[in-house]
Amino acid sequence: MEQHNAYDWWQRPDLCYQGGALHFSGRSVQSLAEQFGTPSFVYSGQRIQTNLQRIKQALNDAGLGERHTLYYAMKANRFAPLLTMLKQSGLCGIDACSPNEVEHAVGCGFEAKQISFTATSLSRQDFSTLARYSGLFMDCDSIHAIRAWGKLKPGSEIGIRVNPAMGIGRACNAKLHYAGCDTTKFGIYREQFDEALATTKQYGLRVTKIHFHTGCGYLTPELEQWEQVIKSCLWFVDRAGEIERVNVGGGLGVPHLAEDQPLDLDRWAAVLQRQLGSRDLHIEIEPGDYIVKDAGLLLLGKSFVERKQQTTFVGVDAGFNIAPEPAYYDLPFQPVPLHWDNEPCSAHHVVGNINEALDVWYQNAMLPDLSGEDHLALINAGAYSSSMASNHCMRGQFKEFLLL
Amino acid sequence: MEQHNAYDWWQRPDLCYQGGALHFSGRSVQSLAEQFGTPSFVYSGQRIQTNLQRIKQALNDAGLGERHTLYYAMKANRFAPLLTMLKQSGLCGIDACSPNEVEHAVGCGFEAKQISFTATSLSRQDFSTLARYSGLFMDCDSIHAIRAWGKLKPGSEIGIRVNPAMGIGRACNAKLHYAGCDTTKFGIYREQFDEALATTKQYGLRVTKIHFHTGCGYLTPELEQWEQVIKSCLWFVDRAGEIERVNVGGGLGVPHLAEDQPLDLDRWAAVLQRQLGSRDLHIEIEPGDYIVKDAGLLLLGKSFVERKQQTTFVGVDAGFNIAPEPAYYDLPFQPVPLHWDNEPCSAHHVVGNINEALDVWYQNAMLPDLSGEDHLALINAGAYSSSMASNHCMRGQFKEFLLL
Repeated sequence: MEQHNAYDWWQRPDLCYQGGALHFSGRSVQSLAEQFGTPSFVYSGQRIQTNLQRIKQALNDAGLGERHTLYYAMKANRFAPLLTMLKQSGLCGIDACSPNEVEHAVGCGFEAKQISFTATSLSRQDFSTLARYSGLFMDCDSIHAIRAWGKLKPGSEIGIRVNPAMGIGRACNAKLHYAGCDTTKFGIYREQFDEALATTKQYGLRVTKIHFHTGCGYLTPELEQWEQVIKSCLWFVDRAGEIERVNVGGGLGVPHLAEDQPLDLDRWAAVLQRQLGSRDLHIEIEPGDYIVKDAGLLLLGKSFVERKQQTTFVGVDAGFNIAPEPAYYDLPFQPVPLHWDNEPCSAHHVVGNINEALDVWYQNAMLPDLSGEDHLALINAGAYSSSMASNHCMRGQFKEFLLL
Repeated sequence: MEQHNAYDWWQRPDLCYQGGALHFSGRSVQSLAEQFGTPSFVYSGQRIQTNLQRIKQALNDAGLGERHTLYYAMKANRFAPLLTMLKQSGLCGIDACSPNEVEHAVGCGFEAKQISFTATSLSRQDFSTLARYSGLFMDCDSIHAIRAWGKLKPGSEIGIRVNPAMGIGRACNAKLHYAGCDTTKFGIYREQFDEALATTKQYGLRVTKIHFHTGCGYLTPELEQWEQVIKSCLWFVDRAGEIERVNVGGGLGVPHLAEDQPLDLDRWAAVLQRQLGSRDLHIEIEPGDYIVKDAGLLLLGKSFVERKQQTTFVGVDAGFNIAPEPAYYDLPFQPVPLHWDNEPCSAHHVVGNINEALDVWYQNAMLPDLSGEDHLALINAGAYSSSMASNHCMRGQFKEFLLL
């Protein structure tokens, strides 16, 4: 039963076994691996756009069709062809968090006015680079940022990133905790909000947006907490006076395990409608994971299968350094064989080629006999993988392909 | 008292306040920061060589002067000038763990025969690249590796990486656990050792070295455990027959906190003498951290100081992505001001410029009033920092300087 489940939960029309061969975005994954070589990230342009459209549909159905803008969080995956495809799709703008990200997004075809910028600990050099991009919308996450931006762009329109400090934001794990009981570096708290508003007045800045981000990886069970966070942020909206836009950040999660239930987008959109629908506010959303994570496969070469003590290991030709989520964040990428036709499976530890103990892709993955296989694929590898890759042990080589 | 301690434990003649100004390797750190810009890693060539000499001295004093070789674990820091300096010092060879590392070490001046190679999950392509470097010494960590190398280099001399599976190796934290209760991908276990030896015979390979690595960050309190690991590995030495060399890996740690006591190198060397001294064995050691960690400073620009709720934050111009140890491994880099003359200190959270909750350099760092300061330095940033850096959020820019 368990092994059945290991193959059931993630299959969908554009990622499934057809006649025993794994297909992705209409292609045989075996052919892709042979043609591209490994390690290679492969992204489905169609899936990315479908993910965006699904969010838009839910917002439309909730009556927020004309009142929202999606900004793709490019830190999740900045592969240039992917960004250009998104620009051309017209489905979203860009959420950027560093001057280089802004330059890269513009280099890929976006206009500065399509970029929502929210960063932390900006240097003087950062501010002056950003000031060159007229139309860029700046969310200030500290009084320091209000002051620095005010000096460069007096009289301009800004957003303020706030921190509701509710202790209830969902974080995928402790390391991803953005807003909670401990004071974090992010945003301006209630205690300092009046001072922040007074500072904007010193420079004639007009605060028209409230931004907050309270976690990541929200699935349906977390929606109630999420609603509480939004509710608590309305305190800032009311206090600021002339707010036109509310940016609720990203946080939409995707399932990583068989037992995870996908996020119910209709319920998610209903929260926004309930909390913000009666107000004259435009809603901004910054999804990253939700857009690209399940649209990416990591294709790997099999190095060996070998028993050590009582455990069977499958070694592959890349390590955690090119896709750090499993090792650092305990967010596993399910390994899937390129061929499977209901053969019996047994537990394997899938491990990488880095000389470090944390370089384990997946423990107890249910896999069939792999003796005839040269490759393995990891699903959910489209976000926070290549964008966070390092050259640790000089094992940083990989390729990327956008399937259109 | 606590603040005093925060400044006492790490100062040493080549890293200390002189007339209130921080000096490193004979230079004013303020001048370095102004000249180089930030973020910059600065390495002391002298300190690196002193660290190596200290190990050699301890081995000499223990009567192992002619019977050891040090191999610097280049994965800790592969900055090319640093490698060339090490080559020219004649103090050590290189411990490499990927074909690209071998090529880089050779590119920096080392000969292949000065390289000890120990890796995991090598691909066919990896093996054929490595086979081109004649004289390179290969430690096989799996039966698969013995077979692959045997086909390419029949009749050659090899080492076998073994795993004592004692459950007693010191690991800095759970993620760095190399050998313990759970079966890991590293090395060949007792259960498979006879099969491994039989495989070497098939290819006429001569096993002359036993290699093991059982953790990292050993300080004096862990030496007893370490001795048990070495003792248990003698089982493999005896079983293999004609072993000439034993490689005990690295694992020598440096203090990260005021309460850490430095490793007692004499006691460390005495363990080697006690366990291996009476045998006709050459001892190989692969230190990485111990050689370069405390020889590196990370110079940062101060972006802001600001109170959020009741906490004072200091923002700097680089994030965890260029030096991941504090965020991922909970190994803190003490932040130190460039000027300090016994002024009173208070707690600050030092945070980076990445939009992620784990981008915190140090919580509750005792720092003086920083209003007159443009910079901050982090100590212990010489190892597993630049070598593991990523371009996450496109914030991957930094410079490196070797001080000679």
